[in-house]
Amino acid sequence: MSITLDQLNAASASDAAQLLDGLYEHSPWIATQALAMRPFRSLAHLKHCMVQVLANAGREAQVVLIRAHPELAGKAMASNTLTAESTNEQNKAGLTQCSPAELRRIGELNEAYSDKFGFPFVLAVRGTRGTGLTKAQIFATFERRLLDHPRFELHECLRNVHRIVELRLNDKFGIQPALGNDVWDWHDRLAAYTDPGYAEKGQLTVTYLTDAHRACAAMLSGQMRECGFDSIHIDAVGNVVGRYEATTGSAKALLTGSHYDTVRNAGKYDGRLGIYVPMACVRELSRTGRRLPIAIEVIGFAEEEGQRFKATLLGSGALIGDFKSEWLEQRDANGISMREAMQHAGLRPEDIPSVRRNPGDYLGFVEVHIEQGPVLNELALPLGIVTSITGSMRYAVEVIGTACHAGTTPMNRRSDAAAAVAEVILVAEARATRDGNSVATVGQLLVPNGSTNVVPGRCQFTLDLRAPTDNQRDAMVTDVLAALDAICARRQVAYTLEQTMCASAAPSAPAWQARWERAVDSLGLPLHHMPSGAGHDAMKLHEVMQQAMLFVRGQNSGISHNPLESTTSDDIQLAIEAFSNLLTQLAGEG
Amino acid sequence: MSITLDQLNAASASDAAQLLDGLYEHSPWIATQALAMRPFRSLAHLKHCMVQVLANAGREAQVVLIRAHPELAGKAMASNTLTAESTNEQNKAGLTQCSPAELRRIGELNEAYSDKFGFPFVLAVRGTRGTGLTKAQIFATFERRLLDHPRFELHECLRNVHRIVELRLNDKFGIQPALGNDVWDWHDRLAAYTDPGYAEKGQLTVTYLTDAHRACAAMLSGQMRECGFDSIHIDAVGNVVGRYEATTGSAKALLTGSHYDTVRNAGKYDGRLGIYVPMACVRELSRTGRRLPIAIEVIGFAEEEGQRFKATLLGSGALIGDFKSEWLEQRDANGISMREAMQHAGLRPEDIPSVRRNPGDYLGFVEVHIEQGPVLNELALPLGIVTSITGSMRYAVEVIGTACHAGTTPMNRRSDAAAAVAEVILVAEARATRDGNSVATVGQLLVPNGSTNVVPGRCQFTLDLRAPTDNQRDAMVTDVLAALDAICARRQVAYTLEQTMCASAAPSAPAWQARWERAVDSLGLPLHHMPSGAGHDAMKLHEVMQQAMLFVRGQNSGISHNPLESTTSDDIQLAIEAFSNLLTQLAGEG
Repeated sequence: MSITLDQLNAASASDAAQLLDGLYEHSPWIATQALAMRPFRSLAHLKHCMVQVLANAGREAQVVLIRAHPELAGKAMASNTLTAESTNEQNKAGLTQCSPAELRRIGELNEAYSDKFGFPFVLAVRGTRGTGLTKAQIFATFERRLLDHPRFELHECLRNVHRIVELRLNDKFGIQPALGNDVWDWHDRLAAYTDPGYAEKGQLTVTYLTDAHRACAAMLSGQMRECGFDSIHIDAVGNVVGRYEATTGSAKALLTGSHYDTVRNAGKYDGRLGIYVPMACVRELSRTGRRLPIAIEVIGFAEEEGQRFKATLLGSGALIGDFKSEWLEQRDANGISMREAMQHAGLRPEDIPSVRRNPGDYLGFVEVHIEQGPVLNELALPLGIVTSITGSMRYAVEVIGTACHAGTTPMNRRSDAAAAVAEVILVAEARATRDGNSVATVGQLLVPNGSTNVVPGRCQFTLDLRAPTDNQRDAMVTDVLAALDAICARRQVAYTLEQTMCASAAPSAPAWQARWERAVDSLGLPLHHMPSGAGHDAMKLHEVMQQAMLFVRGQNSGISHNPLESTTSDDIQLAIEAFSNLLTQLAGEG
Repeated sequence: MSITLDQLNAASASDAAQLLDGLYEHSPWIATQALAMRPFRSLAHLKHCMVQVLANAGREAQVVLIRAHPELAGKAMASNTLTAESTNEQNKAGLTQCSPAELRRIGELNEAYSDKFGFPFVLAVRGTRGTGLTKAQIFATFERRLLDHPRFELHECLRNVHRIVELRLNDKFGIQPALGNDVWDWHDRLAAYTDPGYAEKGQLTVTYLTDAHRACAAMLSGQMRECGFDSIHIDAVGNVVGRYEATTGSAKALLTGSHYDTVRNAGKYDGRLGIYVPMACVRELSRTGRRLPIAIEVIGFAEEEGQRFKATLLGSGALIGDFKSEWLEQRDANGISMREAMQHAGLRPEDIPSVRRNPGDYLGFVEVHIEQGPVLNELALPLGIVTSITGSMRYAVEVIGTACHAGTTPMNRRSDAAAAVAEVILVAEARATRDGNSVATVGQLLVPNGSTNVVPGRCQFTLDLRAPTDNQRDAMVTDVLAALDAICARRQVAYTLEQTMCASAAPSAPAWQARWERAVDSLGLPLHHMPSGAGHDAMKLHEVMQQAMLFVRGQNSGISHNPLESTTSDDIQLAIEAFSNLLTQLAGEG
């Protein structure tokens, strides 16, 4: 007997509380307080209200809630303090059927965890797909999270609590994120293809035009065919292009997509999510025999990450005529040129110019992408509105002071290169923080040949400065470089500065950003605006047409370029629904 | 016709000015003003007064003085603006006989230097021995100093001006630092022995019990014999021990000396100066057939630097019974054990216990050492009174934050390990500075596997904290480690801390320090008190008897453990005179 949202919204306070009973472990007050925010516009809205209640409850109440959870396969399992839901979830994960060695290990982990954090380890053992983590995954997660900072880990527990509740709520409402599950599975299937040398290590690596890369293209083509696209082709640079035509042949198309190549030892979602989310929407249109007054062109870009060759954003670059012919002569680590790799893959470099699109044929470009950052995860928001792809400036800097004896050189007679750099690091950090949405990073830092007892004569570091607009970035760059200059002058050290990158910002087109806002709002979710600090294919398309991106929350603090990159099928479902809404808006506008 | 100090002190102001004419290039005002400080107690006193006049004259007058010097082999050479002295000095260096290529190179250097600093390059071309630098040395110095910071280089020019004047003054007074010159030459001769692989590179490296090391011991023995020591022997660890007996056999001995091993690519004076200065004093006693009521025991310690094996201060350690038998099993980079090396050198490890001295046989220990720091060089003082060998504490630290995407992680969501370390560096620097005579150094600094676009998840560094007393050191350590802890807590990063060294301070015995003070004062030189930030053999003897050290100014900012380490024969002469005075004091006390 499932509940409906209408039922919940219409029920008396006590009836409604009864309907939501058992969501938060021994803590009905969270759902009860959330009910004051009725009517709920969606299940996502209800979830968000409960997240807010707990966020505002303060640390003490949060810890009490965490402590209400049983230890993993712990003693409480045998007692009657476990809720039926907890027992059920731990059963599903096989935790009630552990070997003595496994139980011993869990006991050790529980003890170490409790000693460090003062509360039990909470893990949503049903995982991001809702079907359950393996025991190996559970152990690995436990061991990894044991290393977390206590303040972070408290919130990681709360996030897991909310995930547990999300799954329980789905059960209560008899709802499955069916489309999200399918797309989650597509990612899983596509991740089976990986470059030689990585499969053995269980790592995902798909670089430009390798066998695995070409297999991905073939699989994407096949999946597009199954989704009901009208035409599918692989273009001269390896992009997989699927079109779902409009009601009339002369209609403009919405261009969308993202890349299917990966970094080394990558996550499954980076890029691919932006191909699969619109594919799922097209499948729904095709299934129901609907066509819109606009065409939909979904592209799996062949190359964005610049791993095998130094050309990044190659796939989307080709679409705007920004394929440089000298790239064909670049050679990979094995000495194979891009031209040779293309010929081997059956691609015709001479056809690359024909990949270029006429912007007049398109309404604009949208791209769905996993956030690759911690913001949505921390804010407990499934979706984020991208305001801009930030402009960035990178420098390699070396400060040159005077190496001297750490014992015999008084403090006031030093020209310490590392101390100067320390000041620069803090200035850059403070300057970016002042802007709110700028970022500044010193990612590489080294005293070359440093010795414990030698005052650093040299110190090398990199500066990476990004902001949502070029003006904002340039103002920050000016300030940080002026500080570098002043600090070095005051400390009587010299420096060299080499600019290693300069990329313009790509602000979202207001009309397109507004469409994403309406789409997210239609799901009952609050709007969160954020810049994209990472580069994306949308940057390239930005040069010839309007664009806007939608971000999807990543788990594990949004970690990316890492096998821990992940997202839930519930979040994917919301992204698909948002994309569908965007299509509906465009159809209505037509 | 030489001047005497009495003449100068007795002369009228104008006569005295006339006597000192031509010292500072086109700048008689410096000597004239210094004359107001008459009577001069010594030539060293007069030099110091002139240094003070120029130091107080301000930057403008200093630059005018520097500009009054001709460019090296420059156009002025051909004109009549050169003083006779300048022409003479440049002639001696062979700079008036340059090849066209050399002249072109000098022209380029002069131009680059003048462009950078705005004044001509001033170099005392007669060098630290007064006999002239080679053209190659002059070119190398020019090229090296071209890289200096302008503020530093101004003072380096002034130091060279004073050195030029010192030599001119010696000429005027018909004085040669004869003992200093001999000892300077001894260092030069001893430096001919160097370990295999270093001679080819022109580098000085003498590590424990190599052929070069044993040759040094043999040379020291021979030199001691020539100096008139009564007995000389090489003991069971390789120390070269010379004794000059007292008038009576039962008298106690003054123990003195330093080490003759070196670091790799070392300077010539580190350690050796402390052997040769007392040897020169004994030679003077022996030459004139004098004996004192105290014996003098001079030791060339075989090992202090810990280069070949990990045992440091081995030579002086053996004297206090602090030779650890397990050291014998340590192996060098070629797998040769210390025991094997000793046997190969004809040393008998079983005799090591007999090296131990009975402290009751000795008055105390003194050690002369090149400063190995910039202080005396900057203050233009030839000698310094050591108040303490500082106590030190070293740590290896790793800060563990969270590596994350430099573009997608907002500033307020970072746990940046490097930014935390930057704060620690500045706290340590400020804390040591506050003490005045403490030092704190972060000498090693690294973000392991850092990337430009990744927020540092880890940052490793070393901390080296030193102070003249253990209490002062411990208070600083406490503050810096508390700051590390607080910074990491605030930034939500973790850290690991490993203490890698803890050495106690060795304060000078007041009575012995007072003897050095009287000795330095007797030369008409001001007293400058300073801690020794570096460790020395005196630290070991400190454990069983009173000790105090005397520092001798090093050129080139006091650089040490480097081929640029150097000192003038004039400064060595003063050190010998101070040591002689100390002997006279002890004789008088007896």
